[in-house]
Amino acid sequence: MQLQRSLAELPDVQDVGVVMGTDANKELLAHIDLDSPEVMRARPNDLVLVVRAKDINAAEEALGQVDDLLARRQLGIDQEYHPRSVETAAEILPNASWVLVSVAGRYAAGVARQGLELDKHIFLFSDNVPIEEEIELKRMAAEKGLLVMGPDCGTANIRDIGLGFANKVRTGPISIVAAAGTGLQHVTSRIHQLGGGISYGIGTGGRDLKEQVGGTTFLQGIELLSRDQDTKVMLLISKPPSPIIAEKVLRAARSTDKPVVVCLIGSALKARKMDNLHFAVSLDDAARQAVELADSQVVHVESQALNVERFAKGQCYLRGLFSGGTLAYEAQHILSGYLPRILSNAPLDKTNKLPNSLVSQEHTIVDLGEDEFTVGRLHPMMDNELRIRRLHEEADDPEVAIIMIDVVIGYGSHPDPASELGPAISQARTKAEKAGRYLEAIAVVTGTDEDPQQIDSQIAQLEAAGVWVSTDNEEMVRYAGRLLQELRHEKIKLDFKPVELSVLQQPLAAINVGLESLALNLQAQGAQVIHVDWRPPAGGNEKLMAILERMKQ
Amino acid sequence: MQLQRSLAELPDVQDVGVVMGTDANKELLAHIDLDSPEVMRARPNDLVLVVRAKDINAAEEALGQVDDLLARRQLGIDQEYHPRSVETAAEILPNASWVLVSVAGRYAAGVARQGLELDKHIFLFSDNVPIEEEIELKRMAAEKGLLVMGPDCGTANIRDIGLGFANKVRTGPISIVAAAGTGLQHVTSRIHQLGGGISYGIGTGGRDLKEQVGGTTFLQGIELLSRDQDTKVMLLISKPPSPIIAEKVLRAARSTDKPVVVCLIGSALKARKMDNLHFAVSLDDAARQAVELADSQVVHVESQALNVERFAKGQCYLRGLFSGGTLAYEAQHILSGYLPRILSNAPLDKTNKLPNSLVSQEHTIVDLGEDEFTVGRLHPMMDNELRIRRLHEEADDPEVAIIMIDVVIGYGSHPDPASELGPAISQARTKAEKAGRYLEAIAVVTGTDEDPQQIDSQIAQLEAAGVWVSTDNEEMVRYAGRLLQELRHEKIKLDFKPVELSVLQQPLAAINVGLESLALNLQAQGAQVIHVDWRPPAGGNEKLMAILERMKQ
Repeated sequence: MQLQRSLAELPDVQDVGVVMGTDANKELLAHIDLDSPEVMRARPNDLVLVVRAKDINAAEEALGQVDDLLARRQLGIDQEYHPRSVETAAEILPNASWVLVSVAGRYAAGVARQGLELDKHIFLFSDNVPIEEEIELKRMAAEKGLLVMGPDCGTANIRDIGLGFANKVRTGPISIVAAAGTGLQHVTSRIHQLGGGISYGIGTGGRDLKEQVGGTTFLQGIELLSRDQDTKVMLLISKPPSPIIAEKVLRAARSTDKPVVVCLIGSALKARKMDNLHFAVSLDDAARQAVELADSQVVHVESQALNVERFAKGQCYLRGLFSGGTLAYEAQHILSGYLPRILSNAPLDKTNKLPNSLVSQEHTIVDLGEDEFTVGRLHPMMDNELRIRRLHEEADDPEVAIIMIDVVIGYGSHPDPASELGPAISQARTKAEKAGRYLEAIAVVTGTDEDPQQIDSQIAQLEAAGVWVSTDNEEMVRYAGRLLQELRHEKIKLDFKPVELSVLQQPLAAINVGLESLALNLQAQGAQVIHVDWRPPAGGNEKLMAILERMKQ
Repeated sequence: MQLQRSLAELPDVQDVGVVMGTDANKELLAHIDLDSPEVMRARPNDLVLVVRAKDINAAEEALGQVDDLLARRQLGIDQEYHPRSVETAAEILPNASWVLVSVAGRYAAGVARQGLELDKHIFLFSDNVPIEEEIELKRMAAEKGLLVMGPDCGTANIRDIGLGFANKVRTGPISIVAAAGTGLQHVTSRIHQLGGGISYGIGTGGRDLKEQVGGTTFLQGIELLSRDQDTKVMLLISKPPSPIIAEKVLRAARSTDKPVVVCLIGSALKARKMDNLHFAVSLDDAARQAVELADSQVVHVESQALNVERFAKGQCYLRGLFSGGTLAYEAQHILSGYLPRILSNAPLDKTNKLPNSLVSQEHTIVDLGEDEFTVGRLHPMMDNELRIRRLHEEADDPEVAIIMIDVVIGYGSHPDPASELGPAISQARTKAEKAGRYLEAIAVVTGTDEDPQQIDSQIAQLEAAGVWVSTDNEEMVRYAGRLLQELRHEKIKLDFKPVELSVLQQPLAAINVGLESLALNLQAQGAQVIHVDWRPPAGGNEKLMAILERMKQ
């Protein structure tokens, strides 16, 4: 604070504290030995000035200079007339599509509401806004197709203009939605440092992804950017949200046809990539991936059109019959990103233990190489008998949609497993078809072209039986995961009116209410801005507010 | 099983079951309607043959042909004399450095022990070996500088020779240690499919990384491969081990100077890279990363020599003083991979909440932008006052080794933060030095060359004050993490005698005890092998064992 520093520079002054009289600040003053009985009596709305000096005269002299010191530094926005209200400002600058609000928290929602009523988007810099007010503002904005960034939204980028705390970055094909202020600043800076560029950075405020708020601004941002032509790559930043909201956000991101880098700081990764989503472990990782994707001109193409129409009503479950324990284990791990619960005789955790290994339930992955199946009989890599029996049982279950198997070849394995598994699958699929169902059979083949069984022949025999085949376990499992998720979900419905693209594409013009410095920053960047000479409703401590205003310049 | 299929192919036979009389198998027979009172009376060591046929005659005729059917298929290893013991085999093939053991679980440890006594490495294919025996075998092997792969080790690769279930793969610069059998097969197959090649695949058995066993074979494998000239890239595969063992394994991997891909299937990633470790989310991801690393000829070079000698005794803690909430949050998340506990006023989880935000304890990260510090005062991005006071307090604490700060520039931030923070840090470092301590100050600067404060000038001012500076939060935090870990740990001590490299480099020669098919596979791959005509000690059911042996061929 300018005042604090100016006071500290006076002769014979040893230490200075200039704070509001909140409990936290009083504790802080006590911690650095600047407390006194008068200080401890201050109330939260009092401005506390404490000076420790060589003697009482020096201290009193210092305090006597406060008004002079405040007067010394007077910056001001270059503006002839200062309107007193948002309405008047909107008349003076009719092309302003934004209202920047940085008044004290208890007044902020009121000012933001005035902005929404005038069909303006809101950049709500103020903190200490009650969450109920945030919910109400965002509900109102969603109905009108407007954005409310914040409260406590520290930063945003609209093309080459930064709002609030913001860095000057190159424009380019990456756009960001962030529920993390310095996260957005750090990522945009890293992207710039790595040679990339930004189109838009949409801040949402840190609470937007809380369940109560429901991620309104975040979801609006994703939907808006998905339609924006300048945005080639999207980047999403947040602390880990609740699972319900996380699923909403990821589904929205997957429904776009752009590559999306997802950085949920503090949550560990279960995948590096899931369709068009690219997961990042850190802000730096997110920036690097976004720059790479933007450079590579990747256009996301769905690798496999998912046809879920052909399944009969009621078909919804997966049954995986594995011979390889690790493959069965990895399948469960990957599927846990798609399905709420997978049962197994060898589950990831005990709560998902299949009660009877011989009878599948719901989504089930069976490891047929477990001891219970192999004591006194050959391993399923050598002998297909048991697996074929089980396969027919699963195929007869009218709720089963997908049967998943692994075929592990190589020395030691059955000399030609596909010659037995292929016909069995073919038979099961035909039987299901006659019963009016569609049975998807998928397989991963592990092995090489130098193995005695010849991998190409194994794949060809399985494909001839109508089996979808991959040589990559993860790819097979993700294909099943996507299919099952499609079977489970209806289409996404927007619960907000889409925001018009013009908000991004028009030159930025804004009405500023609160800290004059925010208006000055916009002016310095060449944006049109009108500053409102706003005063709190009668009852606000006007003298104090004025001092604070001047101090903050 | 060959017998089962041959019986099923006989005329008038409808269904056949051929299994050992275990409870699991009896349940299975019941499940497919092949049970009967006689079947249910069978004991685990009984061989159960069940035939369902058109009539009783057809069934009896089928059972009457069992001996004929068994006789029909007689493969045999091309070997003139079959020794009856491991000792004799070792005399006949003295260059055999391996014993392959696949006898029934209860005899396996005894055979393996004979091998170890003859200074042979053990490939222990058998399952159902008690864990106490595994511990004892591995303790004995560790003392002698020998490997015990297994028990239940399905696969291994020694150059171009596969042991057990194994795929024929290209030789190349990638070597693997795996506590996951099909995991190893899948990864070697994927590497081959992606154009890469394998030198060695060391299987350890699935229990090796359990705390009781202590990861002996796994750690031996890492240490051995770190000395092997053919291995350019190491790849480690396991289900997630206990935290204690995981730390041991990762420390061993980091102490090598080779790139190591780590795939702990089922555990989510907290980092993509940590020094020479590259973390993979799936088997396919692991294979891809290993192939890329092998292609790129990456030689791991420690980016920064860590000098921990200059710290005074007792200096061990980190104090992070952040202005950016997201950066503080990410710092805690990344540090959780290095430190057992980090306290904060804005912790990742509530148990690590700093009791008093004004007083740091142990490792502490303070977010000075939290409401408690900003109500009625300027944000620390605008005002350095509070942070500088706190910095001096931390620097005076004799247990503090590292002070970490962020400097976020851009519109809205302080016009020249480094001009205030730099001198303060310099002063604190000098004071610590006078007190006989070394204070490491590190900073991340967030911003761009186009920001009003000029990032280069900020960095230069900080570096002039002796601050280690990065523009990447993750890089700064990992640097601190490495330093703190060095301060915490003593050097790794090997608790085993190193295995001689000759085990990898000599042409493979082996003694096979158990399944003849394992010997046949080796022979087919051109390896020297001698098969032992092993019989269980008196008391084993010899007739039954013989039938089983013949069935399994």
